[in-house]
Amino acid sequence: MSGWDGWLAAQRAERERAGLQRELRPRPADDELLDLAGNDYLGLRRHPEVRRAAAAAGWEWGAGSGASRLVTGTTTLHAELERELADFTGRESALVLSTGYQANLAAVTALAGKDALVVSDAHAHASLIDAARMSRAAIEVVAHNDVAAIRAALAAAGSRRALVLTESIFSVLGDAAPLPALAAVCAEHDALLVVDEAHGLGVAGSGGRGLVHAHGLAGHPHVVLTATLSKSFGAMGGAVLGSAALVDHLVNRARPFIFDTALAPAPTAGALAALRVLRREPELPSLVHRRGAELAARLGVPPSAGAVLSVPMPSPRCALAAQAAVLTAGVRVGCFRPPSVPDGVSRLRATTSAALDDADWSRAVDVLARVVDEQRAAGRRTA
Amino acid sequence: MSGWDGWLAAQRAERERAGLQRELRPRPADDELLDLAGNDYLGLRRHPEVRRAAAAAGWEWGAGSGASRLVTGTTTLHAELERELADFTGRESALVLSTGYQANLAAVTALAGKDALVVSDAHAHASLIDAARMSRAAIEVVAHNDVAAIRAALAAAGSRRALVLTESIFSVLGDAAPLPALAAVCAEHDALLVVDEAHGLGVAGSGGRGLVHAHGLAGHPHVVLTATLSKSFGAMGGAVLGSAALVDHLVNRARPFIFDTALAPAPTAGALAALRVLRREPELPSLVHRRGAELAARLGVPPSAGAVLSVPMPSPRCALAAQAAVLTAGVRVGCFRPPSVPDGVSRLRATTSAALDDADWSRAVDVLARVVDEQRAAGRRTA
Repeated sequence: MSGWDGWLAAQRAERERAGLQRELRPRPADDELLDLAGNDYLGLRRHPEVRRAAAAAGWEWGAGSGASRLVTGTTTLHAELERELADFTGRESALVLSTGYQANLAAVTALAGKDALVVSDAHAHASLIDAARMSRAAIEVVAHNDVAAIRAALAAAGSRRALVLTESIFSVLGDAAPLPALAAVCAEHDALLVVDEAHGLGVAGSGGRGLVHAHGLAGHPHVVLTATLSKSFGAMGGAVLGSAALVDHLVNRARPFIFDTALAPAPTAGALAALRVLRREPELPSLVHRRGAELAARLGVPPSAGAVLSVPMPSPRCALAAQAAVLTAGVRVGCFRPPSVPDGVSRLRATTSAALDDADWSRAVDVLARVVDEQRAAGRRTA
Repeated sequence: MSGWDGWLAAQRAERERAGLQRELRPRPADDELLDLAGNDYLGLRRHPEVRRAAAAAGWEWGAGSGASRLVTGTTTLHAELERELADFTGRESALVLSTGYQANLAAVTALAGKDALVVSDAHAHASLIDAARMSRAAIEVVAHNDVAAIRAALAAAGSRRALVLTESIFSVLGDAAPLPALAAVCAEHDALLVVDEAHGLGVAGSGGRGLVHAHGLAGHPHVVLTATLSKSFGAMGGAVLGSAALVDHLVNRARPFIFDTALAPAPTAGALAALRVLRREPELPSLVHRRGAELAARLGVPPSAGAVLSVPMPSPRCALAAQAAVLTAGVRVGCFRPPSVPDGVSRLRATTSAALDDADWSRAVDVLARVVDEQRAAGRRTA
């Protein structure tokens, strides 16, 4: 046994003591559970056209793209998807990457560097934080959605290039960033606002064009978008959207883009098919919002800006018990507890997905409302 | 125009001055060119069984996996692939990630930290270097395959946890790492040796089980493997292979694993099908080696340890001219020039893939041998 074995065992013991040990639980293709935990917001992941496109591409092009994008990995599928994503979001150009995580790494590391300042919202996604670390820029973390704190940080940036990192709709809280104010403060200080639209694209804005587009900021010279193809678009992969000059810069300088094999044909074609379904059926996001409003009302929480509903619970124990109880009743929701919530509040996370039919949706809402009421009552008794 | 537009324009102008500006060139599904630039070493990317598996999974499971691995993204497909990868490489456990890039980020960032030392071979892949940066460990870069330098670095590590990063077969040079000596020096200092088998798995060792396995190091307690599913296995994705305790640690602590959507069904199933073809046809790698020996002899360079043949050229100009000339003749090879080669030597990079039939392979070898001879002669005339 090496010292490393001891270190790994000690790390695990510490997780177990803190109740933080987690295990993977493989699921079958046709899960009996009603899924309010995943990110298939528009129900397009298994839409017949999307499945057909993924299957056809797997057969025609093969299982992989064969090389990195700058060698021979760029296919006409990637080029089509990039053109249509840029058009959909109102940006000049798009660059598709293998994951949303790498899209954030690529954007931030290619734009920031040792000589730059990165200002990050305290609730920004882990991939944005990891990106900032990898960039080796100076990092300043500011309170959630605190425009004044961002202004102060930028005012102190001096002559350094500065990036501001945020999500359009936050992955845990489900609330929206004050994008017009952020864009204005960035323009004022010539900083670049990097907005992760992972939870905005497909659900926010007219026809699902995202929150940046909804605020009329699609053409804003100080705004860069990142996105994922694994949520509303039902596939996998990520994208960076901005000017042609920005994309050209990333192609040449972003190591998480250059030193990676191109996104495989099936998810590339799947995302493209999902985007086309959404453009043909621009009312699709409204179902997500109707369901979100209904669920929020039933649970007595504020409605979400997108498809993610955050349900604060009285304690970590109540949150876990609620998650287990809804699972027993056939419904899967997410659960966030400290230390994985920046504000220390334990919560359930339910996504108001269009993937369920009306009957299943009603059943899921009933289960969740009943269990949350029970756990809140239990929380009051304990308190 | 923002200051950022000016900065991007200046960056591009600098690349153009240095002759380093690159563009993406989308290719169709059925490329006429003979591809000696990609990484489909065993020709499995478009093998009928692999294509069929990718297509079937895209249809049955959908275009994406729907969530991160710890939420609902882990499917029985991932579990099967992980079990068979571990069995194939002789390791206790495997963890599949979305990309090989993220596999390296996950392994290094979950094991190293501010309090650790990372010792990296000067030729280690960009993803290992980026991983070391993201880990915030102290980084020491040592000369290529210099075991004594690694020993000295580890001796100076003191009580810090230490990782040594290398590739089994190097992506640019095509040479092999001295794995037994590296494992011994790591065991001596209780350091962990992280070996990226991206270019080793599928081509090196008995039946393609990789160079670590070939050296009898598969069960070594100080050796961790990372791998890619996008080269010999013809799909996309990456993996980390080691003890069950290591994989458990990554599941719980590796941010590039936790905060990422699971690998999509089609490439997961494609990689699994490719692995099964390889296990059924363990002589497949020998074709790659025969072709490698033949091409090396024709070009007068040392044979490769794997599928990557490095062909030094007299100058950056000669390398570029050779690449263009073989392309005109219908053959695609890679070209590396400073600053993307650590040793400053410009070279062609040809992969001795089993994807071509014998006639196409012979034609590609003839073209490459003729052009390299011409450019060497031109280089001598200029010198």
